[in-house]
Amino acid sequence: MRHLLGIEGWRREEIETLLDRAEAHLPRGSANASVLQGKVVANLFFEDSTRTRTSFEMAAKMLGAQVLNWTAAGSSVSKGETLLDTVRNIEATGPVALVIRHRSSGAPHLVAKHVRCAVINAGDGTHEHPSQALLDAFTLRKHWGKLDGRTVLIVGDILHSRVARSNILCLTALGARVVACGPPTLLPVGLKELGAEVTTNLDAALPQADAVMCLRLQLERQSESFFPSTREFSRLFGLNVARSEKMKSGALVMHPGPINRGVELAPAVADGARSVILEQVANGVAVRRAILEVCS
Amino acid sequence: MRHLLGIEGWRREEIETLLDRAEAHLPRGSANASVLQGKVVANLFFEDSTRTRTSFEMAAKMLGAQVLNWTAAGSSVSKGETLLDTVRNIEATGPVALVIRHRSSGAPHLVAKHVRCAVINAGDGTHEHPSQALLDAFTLRKHWGKLDGRTVLIVGDILHSRVARSNILCLTALGARVVACGPPTLLPVGLKELGAEVTTNLDAALPQADAVMCLRLQLERQSESFFPSTREFSRLFGLNVARSEKMKSGALVMHPGPINRGVELAPAVADGARSVILEQVANGVAVRRAILEVCS
Amino acid sequence: MRHLLGIEGWRREEIETLLDRAEAHLPRGSANASVLQGKVVANLFFEDSTRTRTSFEMAAKMLGAQVLNWTAAGSSVSKGETLLDTVRNIEATGPVALVIRHRSSGAPHLVAKHVRCAVINAGDGTHEHPSQALLDAFTLRKHWGKLDGRTVLIVGDILHSRVARSNILCLTALGARVVACGPPTLLPVGLKELGAEVTTNLDAALPQADAVMCLRLQLERQSESFFPSTREFSRLFGLNVARSEKMKSGALVMHPGPINRGVELAPAVADGARSVILEQVANGVAVRRAILEVCS
Repeated sequence: MRHLLGIEGWRREEIETLLDRAEAHLPRGSANASVLQGKVVANLFFEDSTRTRTSFEMAAKMLGAQVLNWTAAGSSVSKGETLLDTVRNIEATGPVALVIRHRSSGAPHLVAKHVRCAVINAGDGTHEHPSQALLDAFTLRKHWGKLDGRTVLIVGDILHSRVARSNILCLTALGARVVACGPPTLLPVGLKELGAEVTTNLDAALPQADAVMCLRLQLERQSESFFPSTREFSRLFGLNVARSEKMKSGALVMHPGPINRGVELAPAVADGARSVILEQVANGVAVRRAILEVCS
Repeated sequence: MRHLLGIEGWRREEIETLLDRAEAHLPRGSANASVLQGKVVANLFFEDSTRTRTSFEMAAKMLGAQVLNWTAAGSSVSKGETLLDTVRNIEATGPVALVIRHRSSGAPHLVAKHVRCAVINAGDGTHEHPSQALLDAFTLRKHWGKLDGRTVLIVGDILHSRVARSNILCLTALGARVVACGPPTLLPVGLKELGAEVTTNLDAALPQADAVMCLRLQLERQSESFFPSTREFSRLFGLNVARSEKMKSGALVMHPGPINRGVELAPAVADGARSVILEQVANGVAVRRAILEVCS
Repeated sequence: MRHLLGIEGWRREEIETLLDRAEAHLPRGSANASVLQGKVVANLFFEDSTRTRTSFEMAAKMLGAQVLNWTAAGSSVSKGETLLDTVRNIEATGPVALVIRHRSSGAPHLVAKHVRCAVINAGDGTHEHPSQALLDAFTLRKHWGKLDGRTVLIVGDILHSRVARSNILCLTALGARVVACGPPTLLPVGLKELGAEVTTNLDAALPQADAVMCLRLQLERQSESFFPSTREFSRLFGLNVARSEKMKSGALVMHPGPINRGVELAPAVADGARSVILEQVANGVAVRRAILEVCS
């Protein structure tokens, strides 16, 4: 693998090979602790992020790499430098990989055409967030062994979610059935073509799910007209305690974080026995170690 | 030692064992240069700090660790994430220790109840700043051998000072007499219960002191009603050249930094022969190496 | 070499020795990959910079050092701390070298008088930027073997350019002829004393040049009265495609970055066959590795 730009186009065996490799990075520190010794991984975050940036940073450092943390704030970008000029300049200083987050869908793909080092998409616009999908699949596989025949219900703002998009591609490739659920204004067209079923009725869908993945409601978008109010959203699509009791015995609760407690997820559910949210975070470092190992 | 949350409750021998260990980290680079190789220490600063953050960063790096510098600005905290969610997420990525500064007294203690890795308090509200007290004690012990029978005078804004509080606990535990001196509005109740004597007369107290620790006047609090003007404070409680000449021969001048030159300390005194201010900074790295070594 | 404060006063052989040493750092990773293992280099940027800071950071990390990135924003400087207090405090934590950028000409020279570790000037006011001049000379030497008898034309805002000043000193010391070209209000007095010829006629000077170094037009200074409009500057002093065709066969185009595309340099010229701009960036890391190796 040269770059990690998206899940689109990956075959099942390719995904499974990467997830197998990530196993070797659990428990922490077991595999290849110095595979990137003396190398530098550049984190280029054109959009704010703590969670994903930190996870890639920990993964790189645990492989022995040093990390260059570049952010758009205070950089030449504010002096009007173009994306390609910025990226080419950083590449010229010699990193083995560029981990890129950008508000424009396709930005990492453009970058990958113009550099020689590895490009890893850490989230591009509303397009893809492949490392998140891989860590979610990894987490489910740890619990289930395999995903075939399982149903994963993705709930919330599907329209703006690169997490949803990458997960639909990844989970269906691994044999799962994916159901996307949200208010009509937050369900984009084309979900069926991606491989998902679609519903607006959470209460009807919930009892079928082996895992429920709640997406973050992006409160900063509340002023946009297609958004329900927080209260309305929470009432219709929030996973509260009453709803969680309708879930199958043993069904799992996931969230990519950060959680709006009391909006998409009740605190008691987020911290409850079904929740694998912190496992997702821990598994994320293992999966990103595998990604860096393969791409660098 | 599992966490370093405060000096409160430490026995004298425990403090002395840590200070003995710090000796091994002076001169720089002598001890255990790779004890944290392949490990990551997370600096979680919910409040701005350069000095303490840098000192912990240098200490960790000199032990071979990598450092994750997390700041509240630009993080999910600004999206409303709770302290515990933030900390649990960072812990899940695998650091060996969390170095935490927070504006709320008790925040590190709360965190320590919910994580498995070590928690080091780098300053919590107006409560404690234990690593500062330990480095101050270490500096005095380097000069005096032991603290028994010595008098340390702490001058300035005692009310808001976690440095003063931790130092009173630490220095008295090591056998020193501590006198707290400041304007009446900046002297909290309860100092005697902590073990300190209290005075508002600097000129009377000065000739008895073996060391004078000037605290930073927090100019950003000037608008608060209990604060004297800078000029008035400087006249009554500033350690100027005339006052410094009333000090005992060999008595030391300390300051946790950053100094307001000409307010709490005259430039000629800060840079004079009595001053051990830069020794405090250098010793701080050694003490923090010992802390990280013991806690990680 | 103890510090790198400027090019002023260097003899030709000294410059050549450093450039020879930088050769050993190309290709990347070949020489002394662990010469700074266990050491910390402190980047002290009192002025914003991504490019130079990143380059020094990559250089240090590739030598095995850890890097402390200190910026004025959010530091004690905003609480009124003086330059010398800040620097002495950071020095006391134990770095092997301080890489300093400051808006005041002479700041690194002042610092060097008060610390024991190495001081590297990463740009001081309108004075010097020695590592940039060394990497520019290195880049030209890679293409030409030696600089004797070559003509380098520096175009743009010479008045505010520490890059121009250091380059005039460095390139003339290595035997090149340097011509400075810009609008009369952006040409300082004293260029002849530094060793440069001066012209305001780009079209007349261009055909003689073996390399054209375009300086960044600092758009943030546009409100200052001696500045031409962007449009006027571009028409008279921008290196557009038509002008670039008047250059000698084989002549090179340089820019210290970041480029204002369409102002001082047309995109087709910046990305064209004559351009060595990305080579400058890559060579910068090699030159800075050599600087750190010699100074630390």
